[in-house]
Amino acid sequence: MSPHHTPLLKSPLLSKLNKAPVYLKCENMQQTNSFKARGAWQAIHALKNRSNGVITHSSGNHGAALSWAAKAKGIDAHIVVPENAPPSKIDNIKRYGGIVHFCAAGLDAREEKMKDIQAQGNQVFIPPYNHEDVIAGQSTCAREIFSEVKDIQALLVPVGGGGLLSGSAIAARDDSPKTNVIGCEPTEADDAYRSFHSGNLEHPGNPNTMADGLRTGLGDITFGYIKSLVHDIYTVSEEEIYQAWAFVIHHLKLVIEPSCAVPFAVWKSQLHRWQGQPVAIIITGGNVNLSNLPPHQDSFNFI
Amino acid sequence: MSPHHTPLLKSPLLSKLNKAPVYLKCENMQQTNSFKARGAWQAIHALKNRSNGVITHSSGNHGAALSWAAKAKGIDAHIVVPENAPPSKIDNIKRYGGIVHFCAAGLDAREEKMKDIQAQGNQVFIPPYNHEDVIAGQSTCAREIFSEVKDIQALLVPVGGGGLLSGSAIAARDDSPKTNVIGCEPTEADDAYRSFHSGNLEHPGNPNTMADGLRTGLGDITFGYIKSLVHDIYTVSEEEIYQAWAFVIHHLKLVIEPSCAVPFAVWKSQLHRWQGQPVAIIITGGNVNLSNLPPHQDSFNFI
Repeated sequence: MSPHHTPLLKSPLLSKLNKAPVYLKCENMQQTNSFKARGAWQAIHALKNRSNGVITHSSGNHGAALSWAAKAKGIDAHIVVPENAPPSKIDNIKRYGGIVHFCAAGLDAREEKMKDIQAQGNQVFIPPYNHEDVIAGQSTCAREIFSEVKDIQALLVPVGGGGLLSGSAIAARDDSPKTNVIGCEPTEADDAYRSFHSGNLEHPGNPNTMADGLRTGLGDITFGYIKSLVHDIYTVSEEEIYQAWAFVIHHLKLVIEPSCAVPFAVWKSQLHRWQGQPVAIIITGGNVNLSNLPPHQDSFNFI
Repeated sequence: MSPHHTPLLKSPLLSKLNKAPVYLKCENMQQTNSFKARGAWQAIHALKNRSNGVITHSSGNHGAALSWAAKAKGIDAHIVVPENAPPSKIDNIKRYGGIVHFCAAGLDAREEKMKDIQAQGNQVFIPPYNHEDVIAGQSTCAREIFSEVKDIQALLVPVGGGGLLSGSAIAARDDSPKTNVIGCEPTEADDAYRSFHSGNLEHPGNPNTMADGLRTGLGDITFGYIKSLVHDIYTVSEEEIYQAWAFVIHHLKLVIEPSCAVPFAVWKSQLHRWQGQPVAIIITGGNVNLSNLPPHQDSFNFI
């Protein structure tokens, strides 16, 4: 078991408006239903000594991905999860074989719990994005796109911690230097946008966006890649994200997380920048509670 | 504007269980989000005199598809709809440009209304399935599959009125004679199964299945093709359909109608028949109210 080479779909509806092809890279169909499987798998693959297993703190996609990748490699994954995490997320980690450890809510309690476990078991910590091997794993997503389509003018990538954006920019530098790699961020969680423009790693604050996968701030390693290799970063409002989310599910018929709606919203709001040129959008994941889905009628505002 | 050549995806998860590739033909990504666009388009395309427009009675996918196809060809589509049809379906017809005419509920009122309109406007009636040109249009879906993959052993197709099943069987006869074309039907709406085995066109009764697109009975033309060209028909229970529906949305991340879940349920319940051999499943449409969606946890029962 290794990460899938996921489908690259061409959307006729978006291509018509774009006056050139719009490609959708379906990481929602990746192992564990998110691109995180790529980074987790690569990070474990690169370990010289993995016999003690791995550890991380993430009740979201990285926790599930690391659990899956560890199982695929025949080792243990220990996942530290706050007591107040939703039961569905905890079930998901267990389903992929992860060993769940509860801690009190908050950063301090989480790090203390991790240290306790590592003191006994000496597991290797695999962080969710600020890690060279994780970034190398995420780069395989854009490499697959460039192996299939040669003339992408803009590659639109959501940015939270910046692992996928860094990996995508590295892949473009190596395999498709003419492609502009564009970071896509909620206005309500715009630390990457601010950091990119100030040249310094800015604090994320307390982001409040429906794109829950993008609430994290950049790390120093990811910011280094983004600063030097990313073409630009654009932000979009919660209303734009909501409309794009509803549109993709109701009209493109793909189940996506709200975070994935961000590059769709950027594609539309900045359409003049790439109209007439081929564009690719990475659909980062599909792990979503559909009971929060906007009604069908609301989805006609997008295009 | 003509019908799309839709994506054919390979599902790694189902392929693993099938011990051979399982392909999914995504008609949920077709124009109007259902395969019906193919038949409607072909039927209008084949008309010698189309200047008076077309007419049909269907508040579902055929009504929307005929509205779209008529607009694409620059003519009017008149759609007779019962007064008690859901507003969302009526909006959908209007969105694609169809002219909506209301009638009282029931077959008699519907046919009377159609005659009234035709008496004034002389529009050509395009029925939803029992029509050679509609069937020819639906056949293009399987032709696309066979043009991409040469060794399909079983093609699983839902059967309601039988237009898509007839077209698929014709395509296999012409382009892939080694493929067994399999009809997939809810046990609660099993007129095709009964007709296939008795050799006579059996009455559909009053089917009560969640697969609302498959409640119709076969027509004489579709039954003729099915009798002579289809390999077999299998039925599945409502519980099997429900589980397959939840599985496809929650795990394969494709938005599908309950009717599309029927061939997935047949694939699983008859797995011994094709395990080790390539299989293709037609995902017929994605027009569904997701507020009825089963919870995520229920979807683990499928595989």
